[in-house]
Amino acid sequence: MNDKNSLENSISNDKILDRRDFFRKTAALSMTAIAGTSIFASEAVVDDSAIMHHVPWGQKWGDPVTKNLYGMPSEYEHNVLRRNTELLASGNYRASIAVTPIHESMGIITPNGLFFSRSHGGVAHVDPNEYRLMIHGLVEKPIVLTLEQLKRYPSVTRTHFIECPANGGQEWRGPQFNSLQFAKGFMSCAEWTGVYIKTILEDLGLKPEAQWMLAEGSDNSEMGRTVPVDKVLDDAMIVWGQNGEALRPEQGYPVRLLLPGWEGNLCVKWLKRLEFATEPWYCKEETSKYTALKPTGQAVQHFYANEVNSTVVSPSPEIPWTDLKNGQLIEIEGLAWSGMGTITGVDLSFDGGKNYVPAKLKGLVLPKCWTRWSYMHTYKKGDVLLLTSRAMDDAGYIQPTVDQETAVMGVESVYHRNGVETWEVTAEGKVNHVQIRS
Amino acid sequence: MNDKNSLENSISNDKILDRRDFFRKTAALSMTAIAGTSIFASEAVVDDSAIMHHVPWGQKWGDPVTKNLYGMPSEYEHNVLRRNTELLASGNYRASIAVTPIHESMGIITPNGLFFSRSHGGVAHVDPNEYRLMIHGLVEKPIVLTLEQLKRYPSVTRTHFIECPANGGQEWRGPQFNSLQFAKGFMSCAEWTGVYIKTILEDLGLKPEAQWMLAEGSDNSEMGRTVPVDKVLDDAMIVWGQNGEALRPEQGYPVRLLLPGWEGNLCVKWLKRLEFATEPWYCKEETSKYTALKPTGQAVQHFYANEVNSTVVSPSPEIPWTDLKNGQLIEIEGLAWSGMGTITGVDLSFDGGKNYVPAKLKGLVLPKCWTRWSYMHTYKKGDVLLLTSRAMDDAGYIQPTVDQETAVMGVESVYHRNGVETWEVTAEGKVNHVQIRS
Repeated sequence: MNDKNSLENSISNDKILDRRDFFRKTAALSMTAIAGTSIFASEAVVDDSAIMHHVPWGQKWGDPVTKNLYGMPSEYEHNVLRRNTELLASGNYRASIAVTPIHESMGIITPNGLFFSRSHGGVAHVDPNEYRLMIHGLVEKPIVLTLEQLKRYPSVTRTHFIECPANGGQEWRGPQFNSLQFAKGFMSCAEWTGVYIKTILEDLGLKPEAQWMLAEGSDNSEMGRTVPVDKVLDDAMIVWGQNGEALRPEQGYPVRLLLPGWEGNLCVKWLKRLEFATEPWYCKEETSKYTALKPTGQAVQHFYANEVNSTVVSPSPEIPWTDLKNGQLIEIEGLAWSGMGTITGVDLSFDGGKNYVPAKLKGLVLPKCWTRWSYMHTYKKGDVLLLTSRAMDDAGYIQPTVDQETAVMGVESVYHRNGVETWEVTAEGKVNHVQIRS
Repeated sequence: MNDKNSLENSISNDKILDRRDFFRKTAALSMTAIAGTSIFASEAVVDDSAIMHHVPWGQKWGDPVTKNLYGMPSEYEHNVLRRNTELLASGNYRASIAVTPIHESMGIITPNGLFFSRSHGGVAHVDPNEYRLMIHGLVEKPIVLTLEQLKRYPSVTRTHFIECPANGGQEWRGPQFNSLQFAKGFMSCAEWTGVYIKTILEDLGLKPEAQWMLAEGSDNSEMGRTVPVDKVLDDAMIVWGQNGEALRPEQGYPVRLLLPGWEGNLCVKWLKRLEFATEPWYCKEETSKYTALKPTGQAVQHFYANEVNSTVVSPSPEIPWTDLKNGQLIEIEGLAWSGMGTITGVDLSFDGGKNYVPAKLKGLVLPKCWTRWSYMHTYKKGDVLLLTSRAMDDAGYIQPTVDQETAVMGVESVYHRNGVETWEVTAEGKVNHVQIRS
């Protein structure tokens, strides 16, 4: 992991800053503050304490703590939702996707209520008391586990994104949605708890000739997918916990497969069966789907990891800069992620990818996890910007340009698009999704 | 941060384990597996694949992805809730607490729906469009900010616990609740997004004579509390985001104060006002409450950080070991936390604190954050265990014994109890909350 992005570095930002240090450090800045308007909040009212008495606060009892023993968002947040359109996936609401409002995202955790939901046969409801997981094939001791037995294995907790390989896949020929949520919201990130499959295999005994693992779900699509044993023995997990509670039904309650960094459809939900064998299965979902058509007419099979990727998150078409004042300092923020490792850096361009400056990685930087990046910008009213981000990972990859990507893959594929994205900020501060060829 | 607990170490557990390594490493274990029952799941059915065909799975469409655009837990998890009893706090449901089911917790994130909820005047509902934050007193440029203006400051995301200083405070004389949730569930942990107050003060200019900050909420209790400026300039935050979405109403929507590691009541919810001055305020909530009565009859004031603490989480009275078989390997898991820094180690005793063995810290180890620990134990049916945990932090503190703590604080206080806790496992595997004097 790159030193500048390390956790230690992140933590050292918190070192005790005593009062004397603070005043030495901020003397110059404070002078600016005294002289003129606030740098960040340029329209703020200065000391109009009368305002505080016009708002009818604190004049009655609030709700009892027993009102919602399982809490819900504020009614004022009713617009922050997963969303679906018939233009996404099949148009059948049971074999479709509801996407995450990443324009409203903060940090690296997606709350469970907003985690994107994709299914091929609808959201199954499995009774945890009837739940069984069968592990068989090339193992010394095949087994059928209840949920309680599965949970007795020593657990592990890891923070990873899950991304549909079709994230942005409508847009090979150019933007279809002037919306960050619809353009790039086929992904979310959470803290997962479960067991490494290698731990179970130490218990059951994997036969040396095993090369592939079939995973199958208990929904009506079954979602059979085959996984190479090397990935299984690396970091594959069987998970029952998401962000500190049981998986939600639409995430595969009570149990799903998690292959950190790999295509979301491989992370089979409502998991009922793992079978080990010498050959891959070539199931429906890895032949008729989830292959990528190249300009040669041939399709790529057996590709799994979501490649290094990034997008600007703020501003967005949904939350533009139309209220910003000239000269105001503003944070441009974005997300970067790689299914192959850890993000090592993100560059930001203001001219659609001709010139780049390095952005700052912020907060925790973890492998196969959303990584948030930031760049402080002084806004000039009237300027037109073409904001393009470009991420790098510790596997040695960097996002391709649009032309580099289409030269190899053409525009007929659906999956694994990771060419750079561009967001235009107009002279009025509106934001448009555009594609810059280069 | 201690090397063995570092993030790098945590990540290195994930290094590629190739198939050859795996088979070398597990050859001995696999032999055990082949010879007898599974180590972890000793009652599991071996290869009874008929079972898989008795369960009525996959025979109909599931729910459409559009059913819950804001998702909810499975109906089977209806028992995993915050809980309240009249025995907690005032008995008035508006000035009370609903506690977190930490016996069901996983990892270090508490989902927002289960985050403990404490209020002194009920849960206030503040319209974000009417929201105002006034910052005044000893600042060069006093200001009144709208929510939108506040959010324009550069943001920061940090994972921290919040703990009511009364966590376990009913139990100075001994256990009152044979329940982990009621005994130790006055705390939760989340990923918070907001702005460091030092960033705002760089903008506004803090006057050098400022020594104290008053924080006041807009609920009907106002919850006035005074904070030393050194803490404000260290890591105090104004937060609007929790686990990737807006704060919930019961957490102070739209804005609360966060003083990482310090008493929950100081993290003023529905925050409306910050004022800087040379002296503390001595508000109602820091004189009549939130002081600690000592055996001398004097009360301790101005104590803020929640001291180093820990508890066993699994097994618990709620989830006992009554189904475990003799000889089964089982993970004993717990939580440790310190408001003064980072957990450096946890010891576990099987005899109520006479002898200790070191437990393993697992997952992310972050400052002022829940840290999960683990110990693998071979269960002997019929043994009676007295499980006591003892945590240490990098500020140099270790949890006191019950006698050490009561010698200083007596048994008349309510707050800041961090003496070691003991959980008895009976010969039948039931779990009881007990107190061992030593």
